[in-house]
Amino acid sequence: MSRRSGGFVVLEGIEGAGKSTQLERLGRRLAATGTEIVRTREPGGTEAGEQIRGLLLDPGFGDVAPETELLMIFAARAEHLHQVIRPALQRGAWVLSDRFTDASFAYQGAGRGLAMERIEALETWLQGDLRPDLVLVFDVPVEVGLGRALARGKRDRIESEDIAFFERAREAYRTRARCDPERYRLIDGTPDPETVEAAVARAWSDWLENRAG
Amino acid sequence: MSRRSGGFVVLEGIEGAGKSTQLERLGRRLAATGTEIVRTREPGGTEAGEQIRGLLLDPGFGDVAPETELLMIFAARAEHLHQVIRPALQRGAWVLSDRFTDASFAYQGAGRGLAMERIEALETWLQGDLRPDLVLVFDVPVEVGLGRALARGKRDRIESEDIAFFERAREAYRTRARCDPERYRLIDGTPDPETVEAAVARAWSDWLENRAG
Ligand SMILES: Nc1ncnc2c1ncn2[C@@H]1O[C@H](COP(=O)(O)OP(=O)(O)OP(=O)(O)O)[C@@H](O)[C@H]1O
Ligand SMILES: Nc1ncnc2c1ncn2[C@@H]1O[C@H](COP(=O)(O)OP(=O)(O)OP(=O)(O)O)[C@@H](O)[C@H]1O
Ligand SMILES: [Mg+2]
Ligand SMILES: [Mg+2]
Repeated sequence: MSRRSGGFVVLEGIEGAGKSTQLERLGRRLAATGTEIVRTREPGGTEAGEQIRGLLLDPGFGDVAPETELLMIFAARAEHLHQVIRPALQRGAWVLSDRFTDASFAYQGAGRGLAMERIEALETWLQGDLRPDLVLVFDVPVEVGLGRALARGKRDRIESEDIAFFERAREAYRTRARCDPERYRLIDGTPDPETVEAAVARAWSDWLENRAG
Repeated sequence: MSRRSGGFVVLEGIEGAGKSTQLERLGRRLAATGTEIVRTREPGGTEAGEQIRGLLLDPGFGDVAPETELLMIFAARAEHLHQVIRPALQRGAWVLSDRFTDASFAYQGAGRGLAMERIEALETWLQGDLRPDLVLVFDVPVEVGLGRALARGKRDRIESEDIAFFERAREAYRTRARCDPERYRLIDGTPDPETVEAAVARAWSDWLENRAG
């Protein structure tokens, strides 16, 4: 079955953790294997998704209820799954996504206080039993991540949250990674990009071996 | 308990059925009772909701997956419940809403083919056990409703659906009304507005008697 050739790989972590940087590098390395690579990101990756993302990140959208934000993100995700992720997995591609549902647990769950069970219910409502095959969680202290993101000049509605919000999100990512070591790899994102890339390569081989076995 | 003084009343039906016209008239009549009246509409009734509505009705938003549309509508609904409906019911007001979740069953369910059970699951996910106390379904043949709406010059993304789509929506409204006669009243929306208003007044008294009893 062609589904086996690629897989669904998600890169997670707070802002500035290095997701986009490492997605680019991982993508280049996998391209050498000849398997199709689909690079994408959440919430977005589709035209409708980008419009929803635009609405959500717009400071003018105002303070909506946590459930409103969660449902919008799942709407973008529905489109992303429908147009991009499912078809690519069907074709046997590697899908590398900059964020996916773990971000909802970290930000809307731990961050905004929505019950994890409610997010799990929505996850199953939308995804059925589809889950990432591998989640790489880039872990950095909040000051480091925000420092990098700010140096880049980035500041939108979500990024103007307080430090405690990001601390809760980081902790949620760490907990999720620890609770499911088969599908998650926690990667220290503080060293230089080459060192992080080497850690990703090791995590990748390790995961691939377990998967084949 | 003040909750008993008012209630949650929803007006439903396909485009041009007469919802807005009758909501206005019912509102005027109820105003005489001295109880607070909150007039609202779906998907909207809040700033974020109107923006979501704008995105959904924009022909440029394109053909999104039925689940995407449903989740966006529920996002607007979450905000509507949070900001408008729940606080008003808490205060003991009458909430008169131009559409609510029945429209999702009619349009995204019967219209677009999403399974009713999936919509029910999302309804319970968001609303818990909150359901309208009374749903007035205005029933008109599709040609009549669309004829009225077009005469008004209205045509957006949803209204450019084919006739069969609206036939399915109309049928779903009729079925839902028949299946729960305590909470629903099916009202013939074809006669002139005064005749329809009189039918609403009769349905209202009938419902109020049952409710008190
Ligand atoms: N290991 C690293 N060490 C130092 N700087 C890094 C490292 N990785 C990435 N950066 C830089 O930090 C900034 C944020 O990195 P990147 O965009 O990859 O993070 P991200 O997790 O995608 O952030 P966001 O959530 O904001 O998209 C970029 O300017 C990037 O060049
Ligand atoms: N009973 C009626 N007989 C004839 N015309 C009517 C009647 N009720 C409303 N109309 C007219 O038909 C048009 C549609 O009515 P209305 O706006 O109340 O319907 P609606 O159900 O709210 O439609 P929409 O879903 O498009 O908002 C309006 O121009 C209104 O004046
Ligand atoms: Mg990034
Ligand atoms: Mg109307």
